[in-house]
Amino acid sequence: MIRAEGNCLAHVANGRIATDAKRDLGPRLVALDAALTSVLASYGPGAAAVEEVFVNKNAQSTLKLGQARGVVLLAAAKAGLIVGEYAPSLVKKAVVGTGAADKDQVHAMVSRLLPGVAIDGPDAADALAVAICHAHHLGTARATG
Amino acid sequence: MIRAEGNCLAHVANGRIATDAKRDLGPRLVALDAALTSVLASYGPGAAAVEEVFVNKNAQSTLKLGQARGVVLLAAAKAGLIVGEYAPSLVKKAVVGTGAADKDQVHAMVSRLLPGVAIDGPDAADALAVAICHAHHLGTARATG
Repeated sequence: MIRAEGNCLAHVANGRIATDAKRDLGPRLVALDAALTSVLASYGPGAAAVEEVFVNKNAQSTLKLGQARGVVLLAAAKAGLIVGEYAPSLVKKAVVGTGAADKDQVHAMVSRLLPGVAIDGPDAADALAVAICHAHHLGTARATG
Repeated sequence: MIRAEGNCLAHVANGRIATDAKRDLGPRLVALDAALTSVLASYGPGAAAVEEVFVNKNAQSTLKLGQARGVVLLAAAKAGLIVGEYAPSLVKKAVVGTGAADKDQVHAMVSRLLPGVAIDGPDAADALAVAICHAHHLGTARATG
């Protein structure tokens, strides 16, 4: 969660929703939905974005990812949000200037763009990078609109 | 939706939730969730079942299926249901006696097992077949339990 005003970005919150891998899929989806719905209700963001999925070779992983993603997109849509989608390479380009960058570089630049942020691991760094990418795109859309 | 008492099966309802393919994914997932939640609230079933997914070669289709499936499993879990999962071949075996059967055969047997049913197309026939399969399995579990 970031705040974007004009060219200024500020960190609001970041984190990772983890569910108990030992539980059945149903309760895990309920936990994911509840946690995300609670975050959306607490912060009331005006926009949301996710990474575009590049479906991988492991079809079983793609299915699992899809199931969680459906729940995430449902929660966002129920909160009235239109969700931006960005290819990972576009996200990297937005924060490090090139589409080919490793996780450390993304982490380092997210820390620089959001001074004072304490990042809750690589996934949270990626999420903040997606938020920054979305803010840039919305900013550009407004500037050229 | 079927009713199962001992060896007796009866049809309760069947149908298909369709969403507008021209709309964005978010609103379509919201429509799916709302329709399914309403069906579950109206009928208050005691059990639910879905077909196991055999992930197919088209990864993009697997992702789409996963997203819708996540929303479906979430709605069922929120309604307090444990969801049975059956391989398509097991479902066919439960209604036609063999795992290799075509859709017409499934449709015909579902009509025979649930006298008087008016089936809302092949997908609804498949859904009723899954319900019948689940009823058989729960019945067997009780009988041997």
